[in-house]
Amino acid sequence: MQANIPKTTLKRVVIVGGGFAGLRLASDLPKKVFQVVLLDKNNFHQFQPLLYQVATAGLEPSSIAFPFRKVFSRRRDFHIRLTEVISVDKEHRKLETTIGDISYDYLVLATGATSNFFGNRDIEKFSLPMKSIQEALQLRNHLFQRFEDALIASDKEELSLFLNIVIVGGGPTGVEVSGTLAEMKKYILPKDFPDMDFSELHIYLIEGSDRLLPSMSSDSSLQARRCLEKMGVEVMTQTLVEHYDGRYVTLNNGHKIPSKTMIWAAGVKGSIIEGVPREQITHGQRLRVNEFNTVHGYEDVFAIGDVAHMVTSDYPNGHPQMAQPAIQQGRLLAKNLVRMQKGLPLLPFTYKDLGSMATIGRNKAVAELPGYHFHGFFAWVIWLVVHLKSILGVRNKFLVLINWIWNYITYDLSLRLIIKNDKKLD
Amino acid sequence: MQANIPKTTLKRVVIVGGGFAGLRLASDLPKKVFQVVLLDKNNFHQFQPLLYQVATAGLEPSSIAFPFRKVFSRRRDFHIRLTEVISVDKEHRKLETTIGDISYDYLVLATGATSNFFGNRDIEKFSLPMKSIQEALQLRNHLFQRFEDALIASDKEELSLFLNIVIVGGGPTGVEVSGTLAEMKKYILPKDFPDMDFSELHIYLIEGSDRLLPSMSSDSSLQARRCLEKMGVEVMTQTLVEHYDGRYVTLNNGHKIPSKTMIWAAGVKGSIIEGVPREQITHGQRLRVNEFNTVHGYEDVFAIGDVAHMVTSDYPNGHPQMAQPAIQQGRLLAKNLVRMQKGLPLLPFTYKDLGSMATIGRNKAVAELPGYHFHGFFAWVIWLVVHLKSILGVRNKFLVLINWIWNYITYDLSLRLIIKNDKKLD
Repeated sequence: MQANIPKTTLKRVVIVGGGFAGLRLASDLPKKVFQVVLLDKNNFHQFQPLLYQVATAGLEPSSIAFPFRKVFSRRRDFHIRLTEVISVDKEHRKLETTIGDISYDYLVLATGATSNFFGNRDIEKFSLPMKSIQEALQLRNHLFQRFEDALIASDKEELSLFLNIVIVGGGPTGVEVSGTLAEMKKYILPKDFPDMDFSELHIYLIEGSDRLLPSMSSDSSLQARRCLEKMGVEVMTQTLVEHYDGRYVTLNNGHKIPSKTMIWAAGVKGSIIEGVPREQITHGQRLRVNEFNTVHGYEDVFAIGDVAHMVTSDYPNGHPQMAQPAIQQGRLLAKNLVRMQKGLPLLPFTYKDLGSMATIGRNKAVAELPGYHFHGFFAWVIWLVVHLKSILGVRNKFLVLINWIWNYITYDLSLRLIIKNDKKLD
Repeated sequence: MQANIPKTTLKRVVIVGGGFAGLRLASDLPKKVFQVVLLDKNNFHQFQPLLYQVATAGLEPSSIAFPFRKVFSRRRDFHIRLTEVISVDKEHRKLETTIGDISYDYLVLATGATSNFFGNRDIEKFSLPMKSIQEALQLRNHLFQRFEDALIASDKEELSLFLNIVIVGGGPTGVEVSGTLAEMKKYILPKDFPDMDFSELHIYLIEGSDRLLPSMSSDSSLQARRCLEKMGVEVMTQTLVEHYDGRYVTLNNGHKIPSKTMIWAAGVKGSIIEGVPREQITHGQRLRVNEFNTVHGYEDVFAIGDVAHMVTSDYPNGHPQMAQPAIQQGRLLAKNLVRMQKGLPLLPFTYKDLGSMATIGRNKAVAELPGYHFHGFFAWVIWLVVHLKSILGVRNKFLVLINWIWNYITYDLSLRLIIKNDKKLD
């Protein structure tokens, strides 16, 4: 096999990763100016903010995934390859990939971030992260299989292993998934399992810092905690997981929680490719870039999105690892690459904070827009609108909307399927 | 673990398998008369006639799957267990299962049918069957991965391995899947892969008998063949696959077709449980039953649906293995079990043939209703209506309809995602 990318006289921009940053850049690059090569290990873009709804049976994967070939259908001088990049050779300006070498004129690393287990091998082995469609589906299968297991548990101890759910990390993902599970416990499971007592199902949300949603205001943190506790979630702040063996979660306060289900939403680290300059890897395994998203010390290598670490006076620790900075950096880099071609000076990046939000449950969310903080029903409506607007494609928007309306009216999540993949994977 | 099925004074009916037959029986059994135990290895009913649309990216699995717990939510004296049945012990009236022993007063085998590879191990290993949601998803992943592979093929021979598709079996499934693939070749792939030449993609449909759709009239067979050939499918009748090594399909006429994709729709056999009377296993590995669906020689063991082989004057070779006989047998057995309780004589089964049909492509189908044969647009509309009507649940009907309308208008199949399941399966 070989990458088979046609030769042209155009300069070649190779983009590694089709997340928010890479996709925006690829879309914004003008036609006939560059040859664009988009590399990703999946054949689809995934809308990460709603992965937790796939994991909790509220949405189908296809509603929040969009095939790259559909986004860029019929585009000329545009080449998509499914591959994993093994290493970068900056001297010869080429990438080594699983389908052969690919040379570049400009290289853009938009590889995003992956779960950070902080070096704990056991946690990595036994916990359930939620950073991709695959992981979200595995979590969905796992959750519903555990409820089936609970039904045939031999004793109380086994029952608690199957029913307890521990969520580690009190950021938006942790808050959203605990809220959804609390509602599932209340509205769905008693109907599905009329002969089981779900008062034995406990949902624990563990956060290391002193409050939930540490990136938001303390008012929002308080609201989120109050809502979740009212819904029955047991919130523990200033608590760390020390050890997990697949059966017992050991906390640093000495407590042990029996649970087969530990969901890991406690942190991310940049996804780094072999061969990038070691000395430019900084906090959270992100790549140090200047205000043009150029990797320090290089002219033709850029990093954008979660993997990029740009220090500005407003953001001395880099920008938050979420959709907006990624999209805005992708957009600016498209402009700057054109400017480079024309010999114009590059424009520096300034992040326009559009706010942040987290949904907690039915009619409940916290939202912080520049200048305004909301919580409750209004924040929840804003959350819905913003997320719906951001999903790629009319069909997907429509399907997500239909599913949300359906779930809202029926108090139901329809996708409680355990689909095990049992053979012949390739 | 143990099955944990509560003891009652009611007689216990254990149903193995929640396909068309088992589901109809379970739904029709009156409340407060029996304790019903439904055993299945999946937690959902799957609508098999549309599996091919999942495999070809037209529908999501969840649109044609319906969780059992939702169908029977809040039902008392009704117990669903996810398990595989290992064997039956008729003497002690109990089943050995993966979650422990389960005793019964009445046992109903509704285990359906599985792919028949006629003892050819290599075909079983390398071909892609399509009898379950899992298999349909694997086929979807496989198909779209092969198109990606074609893009990076090193030479002509490798290209033909990736692009050729061989479908074995000219029944409704084989006809439907070849038609869909032919339309994908025409409408979708050229847009998705603007830099590839799909004239190299060949679709072969191989059938052992002398015509396609051998269970329908010769007129329908002819129509189906004519349509498919017009769409570019290469149809070979009176042809058998002798050997397949994952790269070359060897036919009994001496031809060898290079292909990494051989779809197996060539036949089924009954799914038999260890311990059923050997001497009652007959043609196609089905269980011989009398006109009340009682397994010959037993009073408390029944078989219904695809796994049952009932000989009547109209059907000397058993009933066709499709939805209608299964549903009708399930419905009658529910009545007969009540009659047994009341000491009334049992009612014999008579199959009411509601017709059969197969869709070939956009606006094209063949349909045979009692007394009428159609083909073309009208048959296609009938096909749509009948299938939509048969799908379980308002939400699923609605989603399937939306998807069909969408695909029809846009000439597109939206679900071209390759979702590989890469770790942590349980």
